[in-house]
Amino acid sequence: MITTTSNRTEELQKKLVAFMDDYIYPNEKLYEQQLNEADTRWIIPPIVEELKEKAKDQGLWNLFNREEGYGTQLSNYEYAHLCEIMGRSLIAPEVFNCNAPDTGNMEVLMQYGTKEQQEQWLYLLLDGKIRSCFTMTEPDVASSDATNIQSHIIREGDEYIINAKKWWSSGAMDPRCEIAIFMGKTDPEGPIHEQQSMVLVPMNTPGVEVKRHLPVFGYDHAPHGHAEVHFNNVRVPVSNLLYEEGKGFEIAQSRLGPGRIHHCMRAIGAAERALELMCERVNSRETFGSPLAEKGVVREFIAESRLEIDQARLLTLHAARKMDEEGTKAARKEIAMIKIVAPRVSLNVIDRAIQMFGGAGVSDDFPLAAHWANARTLRIVDGPDQVHLRDIGRLELKNYQ
Amino acid sequence: MITTTSNRTEELQKKLVAFMDDYIYPNEKLYEQQLNEADTRWIIPPIVEELKEKAKDQGLWNLFNREEGYGTQLSNYEYAHLCEIMGRSLIAPEVFNCNAPDTGNMEVLMQYGTKEQQEQWLYLLLDGKIRSCFTMTEPDVASSDATNIQSHIIREGDEYIINAKKWWSSGAMDPRCEIAIFMGKTDPEGPIHEQQSMVLVPMNTPGVEVKRHLPVFGYDHAPHGHAEVHFNNVRVPVSNLLYEEGKGFEIAQSRLGPGRIHHCMRAIGAAERALELMCERVNSRETFGSPLAEKGVVREFIAESRLEIDQARLLTLHAARKMDEEGTKAARKEIAMIKIVAPRVSLNVIDRAIQMFGGAGVSDDFPLAAHWANARTLRIVDGPDQVHLRDIGRLELKNYQ
Amino acid sequence: MITTTSNRTEELQKKLVAFMDDYIYPNEKLYEQQLNEADTRWIIPPIVEELKEKAKDQGLWNLFNREEGYGTQLSNYEYAHLCEIMGRSLIAPEVFNCNAPDTGNMEVLMQYGTKEQQEQWLYLLLDGKIRSCFTMTEPDVASSDATNIQSHIIREGDEYIINAKKWWSSGAMDPRCEIAIFMGKTDPEGPIHEQQSMVLVPMNTPGVEVKRHLPVFGYDHAPHGHAEVHFNNVRVPVSNLLYEEGKGFEIAQSRLGPGRIHHCMRAIGAAERALELMCERVNSRETFGSPLAEKGVVREFIAESRLEIDQARLLTLHAARKMDEEGTKAARKEIAMIKIVAPRVSLNVIDRAIQMFGGAGVSDDFPLAAHWANARTLRIVDGPDQVHLRDIGRLELKNYQ
Amino acid sequence: MITTTSNRTEELQKKLVAFMDDYIYPNEKLYEQQLNEADTRWIIPPIVEELKEKAKDQGLWNLFNREEGYGTQLSNYEYAHLCEIMGRSLIAPEVFNCNAPDTGNMEVLMQYGTKEQQEQWLYLLLDGKIRSCFTMTEPDVASSDATNIQSHIIREGDEYIINAKKWWSSGAMDPRCEIAIFMGKTDPEGPIHEQQSMVLVPMNTPGVEVKRHLPVFGYDHAPHGHAEVHFNNVRVPVSNLLYEEGKGFEIAQSRLGPGRIHHCMRAIGAAERALELMCERVNSRETFGSPLAEKGVVREFIAESRLEIDQARLLTLHAARKMDEEGTKAARKEIAMIKIVAPRVSLNVIDRAIQMFGGAGVSDDFPLAAHWANARTLRIVDGPDQVHLRDIGRLELKNYQ
Repeated sequence: MITTTSNRTEELQKKLVAFMDDYIYPNEKLYEQQLNEADTRWIIPPIVEELKEKAKDQGLWNLFNREEGYGTQLSNYEYAHLCEIMGRSLIAPEVFNCNAPDTGNMEVLMQYGTKEQQEQWLYLLLDGKIRSCFTMTEPDVASSDATNIQSHIIREGDEYIINAKKWWSSGAMDPRCEIAIFMGKTDPEGPIHEQQSMVLVPMNTPGVEVKRHLPVFGYDHAPHGHAEVHFNNVRVPVSNLLYEEGKGFEIAQSRLGPGRIHHCMRAIGAAERALELMCERVNSRETFGSPLAEKGVVREFIAESRLEIDQARLLTLHAARKMDEEGTKAARKEIAMIKIVAPRVSLNVIDRAIQMFGGAGVSDDFPLAAHWANARTLRIVDGPDQVHLRDIGRLELKNYQ
Repeated sequence: MITTTSNRTEELQKKLVAFMDDYIYPNEKLYEQQLNEADTRWIIPPIVEELKEKAKDQGLWNLFNREEGYGTQLSNYEYAHLCEIMGRSLIAPEVFNCNAPDTGNMEVLMQYGTKEQQEQWLYLLLDGKIRSCFTMTEPDVASSDATNIQSHIIREGDEYIINAKKWWSSGAMDPRCEIAIFMGKTDPEGPIHEQQSMVLVPMNTPGVEVKRHLPVFGYDHAPHGHAEVHFNNVRVPVSNLLYEEGKGFEIAQSRLGPGRIHHCMRAIGAAERALELMCERVNSRETFGSPLAEKGVVREFIAESRLEIDQARLLTLHAARKMDEEGTKAARKEIAMIKIVAPRVSLNVIDRAIQMFGGAGVSDDFPLAAHWANARTLRIVDGPDQVHLRDIGRLELKNYQ
Repeated sequence: MITTTSNRTEELQKKLVAFMDDYIYPNEKLYEQQLNEADTRWIIPPIVEELKEKAKDQGLWNLFNREEGYGTQLSNYEYAHLCEIMGRSLIAPEVFNCNAPDTGNMEVLMQYGTKEQQEQWLYLLLDGKIRSCFTMTEPDVASSDATNIQSHIIREGDEYIINAKKWWSSGAMDPRCEIAIFMGKTDPEGPIHEQQSMVLVPMNTPGVEVKRHLPVFGYDHAPHGHAEVHFNNVRVPVSNLLYEEGKGFEIAQSRLGPGRIHHCMRAIGAAERALELMCERVNSRETFGSPLAEKGVVREFIAESRLEIDQARLLTLHAARKMDEEGTKAARKEIAMIKIVAPRVSLNVIDRAIQMFGGAGVSDDFPLAAHWANARTLRIVDGPDQVHLRDIGRLELKNYQ
Repeated sequence: MITTTSNRTEELQKKLVAFMDDYIYPNEKLYEQQLNEADTRWIIPPIVEELKEKAKDQGLWNLFNREEGYGTQLSNYEYAHLCEIMGRSLIAPEVFNCNAPDTGNMEVLMQYGTKEQQEQWLYLLLDGKIRSCFTMTEPDVASSDATNIQSHIIREGDEYIINAKKWWSSGAMDPRCEIAIFMGKTDPEGPIHEQQSMVLVPMNTPGVEVKRHLPVFGYDHAPHGHAEVHFNNVRVPVSNLLYEEGKGFEIAQSRLGPGRIHHCMRAIGAAERALELMCERVNSRETFGSPLAEKGVVREFIAESRLEIDQARLLTLHAARKMDEEGTKAARKEIAMIKIVAPRVSLNVIDRAIQMFGGAGVSDDFPLAAHWANARTLRIVDGPDQVHLRDIGRLELKNYQ
């Protein structure tokens, strides 16, 4: 599908595609093997660090970054094209230092961090030396309504004291994870969108307890991993506050826009790869006297997949462009829309591919089942579908009042 | 939704929207009333001819036309935006001389007609003075496979003798319909795509028999109408041949591309109007203690409709642009894709609107049921979904051989 | 599909199937022709009255009737099997005196009518000599919430004075329609479910104005027809009250149960006929070198239709049996469930058949489009899907409180 | 939902429900914990053997068994009700000695095994002392078309020599797995359905190599497990043949019928449990000012789930009854139908439940994700959906030739 972008982006696209072909796909199995051969799955497979160096050398590093002074400064629209390519492999985003939640955390630090905060954590993150996590969701309330959050951050002198139960802190299992962005209430009685603040909490602070690992459809997502993290009387200096007290919700909103484009383009990349795998498969298998590729039902599977992917991509690119041109707030409806469409399409396409692969599709011989599980969580992460559909409906109806 | 077009198109969009508001919507009921009050439904409601003059005066005439020397020469991409607006009302396309099958027939005459043919029919069509029909589909074979066509065109001296049973000849019921483009086999033994030719047949030629009218879900689509037309030893001079013998399939293909963009954008226009009507309705009705607009299920109806419409529009505009830039043949897959997507989306959205309107939705108090019936036929016209899905699948698989 | 019923029902099934084959299907076109040839479409095609006599002769009359002293007294479960067969043709139910709303109105008169009311109207209805309508829905409010109803019935001496605007009064266009069951509020301030009453209103009472006819997707459903009926200071004696004041809601509920079984089984019958027509069609048409019947996509159409129909039938029969064994109230959830499932299935199956028939499917050459339009209204009649889904969800959740 | 069965079955249902409540659900976490605490996941958690003894004591043992002389001899229809209950927990079927593929293997041994074969393996299986696997699917061909199978069984004197690559041999990872039923070709040139035979192969025969474990969406299904098993010049005595040479296909068909009922009823049980969990969840969580249970969208989730489950159950019970009354062959279409419907419904319902649970839904805190993965494989196991839809379509069309 043709979509016009700048020459610069087209060049990066080509380099990225070549990198995927040369280094990523051929090492997916090695990655898993290195994990399996270690004593624990919570180590970094050496291949990752090797590939990171290669990516840096080729200028394929921190491509997500729109901030001045930190790199390529691609627009959301431009980066979206690259992000799709990275999304084709679950091991790729980390290799290019473009994986969540580090990208969002780096954006927050660039935008809201003090010079000290940046020196302590941002540059190490940008360099891929440490990893970070984001702790917001809580097991005891329906976090799809962000105002439900219960964690309290209480100031005592020059320190904040934090007590909380958080979960689905992605990346918290990573042995390199050094810093958490923590969201909680500093002013539980304040106006509803000014109750919360964000505070930086080093993972080695006393009282931070990575309670347990959370699997996703049987996958551990090692060594990244999702964790339940408890904060028991955790004390950090007030200088660890991000921006200002009461600005937690605002910061959270600001990171959501680009993050959604990333999530969605990666999901589309996964779908596109599944479609490719499916096409290859049906060309090579026969049943009842003819290749699968010649059966009408199979062709409809492929056609419907192409229909869904191209539409989802156009919509996501459209949302990215609107964000670039009019800002995140103006693009609010569009951002909600892609959050529904992209995971849905990705699940549909991958599911069809699985069906064409039979047993091989649900196993780990192909990346289909793992991508499916990933896409399924996207319908929950950053708000379940139902919340976004409600918002889209509400925004649409606003025009009629 | 924002989609960039030229200034010229934006101006035309504005004028067209104003015309719809000022003259089209307010006269939809009058149109139907004039039909009902006449002795027969096969007359032209006077309001149509009045509005046509107004449209001409405002330069909103023949906007579909891309050929040099005949008007605005908008690209497919540009016209698509205008076509959507016209599609919002079933009485609108005729008012702007942009209705099928006249548009396609005029394109064929411009591209393939001799000077004589053009003088005899084209200019009258461009001026909106006469109407035309296109006779291809046959009741006795599955015409979704165009090679099934059975009609024979036999040359005898300077004449062609035509014998055939055709149906779904849209526009053939119109009292102003003077000319048919007829498709049939001149060389039934020739190579499969060179057997057919197109011949111009004046409707008043002896032997042309408009056998009966065909309703669509109970609608008669008067005064346009769909007809079964029999050709009994119909004789026309060989100068009525379009282009060359054996080129029928080629001409048919050439008209399909732009025609599909038109059909699809009109279907999207109908969907957009249905969504607007639905939003207005749910703001004004209450059940079980709250307005419909506040119910989650209703909001999901609206959100899903917005999701579908915006994706279908982006895909159709993308196909139009590809046709403009790379030609109809290169855009073949995209043209097949929109033929699936646009009617499907239109049906879904209109169906949701109908559901929100209850009894009013299935009646003629609102244009929903009529638009639905129209969109439903689109899944059959110019090839049923199954044929296009098969093509899309096949074209996609070609990349893997 | 085998479902055990009594011997008596099996015998009736056989007779009914034979009657359909011998008299109903062969006369569907004649019925339409007689309507078309008359000066107005609001006359009774003579063939109907001829067939009614035949049906009476064969004991295929009033089969719906469960009341003692009025006929066969089949259970809901037994009659459901017969009702499906009748539903296969739109002209059939009337022939067997089993058409809505007359069946429901007769049930109400049998259950709640005084001897005088029965003598005046019930026996004529049971004999098929007059027809009736039911006036409940109102154009100005969302009648899906029955408490929204605005019509007032005011007692003045020995008379009720009725003022109201009603619509979708089915059967009110029928020239034989002599009596309306009218629902309105006698006590607008009373407890929510005791505000309404039902009153018998002869159609020739001064002030009863059949305002206009309402089409359904372009169909007029002549000579039965749906009407907007205005009641302008209509006066009827208080002896025309059904049961007691304030019992309107209760009576309405009581008629809904059996009525739903009837509607749903007829919808299933229509679906089964569509599947049969589809199977016959695909055996007789070829595209791209092979019969439609051999294409995978077509087989999936057929398979999915069979899956849907058999499940819907089993569910409806299950609901009927539960009503028979435990009463309408106990079967409330099941009755709501079939109201969702049966029309949905019917629409899906008929839509697939239409697609297989192409142009012929949307025309009146086959009964598909007409059956579709009918089934579509079923998703609105007696409460839109959304109201029933809400009820089912609520009833299910009750088990967890 | 009420479905009449014998008193005996109702009693067993009650006992089984009580057993599930008392022993199964409370031990699901312990089961997982015992697996996690062992050095390997391929051990039997002690709790299983404890519960098996309890089940035996209560007469809840081998309930699947229809053969004379081996137990309760419930009909397929009767057992289906029990099987649904067992399907509610992934650890349950084994506890009642009713898990696949052992049930199917036991049925084969009862029906086709020689006395010696039965003495050697059947009684141990019936007693739950050993486990078995079934090796049919092959990685190198599309096994959905069973005639594609490539494995050869060559007779040499009194021995069969087997060479083959098989995979998805479920249960082959179980340390107690002692016997495999092997399917391969003894007569590759014979008539298409007489080429294959079944042979009993003890797992400890030289040359039998359990090559590797195959995960399912990240789950290892330990200690049962699915394996790729290679057979390298494996020699077994000819007395290990089941029934006769060339009867492999026939035996396979015979086991499919009851097996499908079991699979489908378990899938329905899983769906019913998911619906229960969902109802409980939405009663306990609040967003945007009201409990989830009061939101329209949530109620529709629940209603649609109830609609789907009840229909799937009725269809499966109907198929079971038909098998009981008319035999497996007569019920062929019905058996194919439930194979489509039950997994589909189960996936839909569980997916909705997951969505209501958010992060908790995709993790292992609730059995939803694991049940989903299980149900997803059902759309592939014993033939992918597409093969069954093709069959259903073909069988339906047979009535029209």
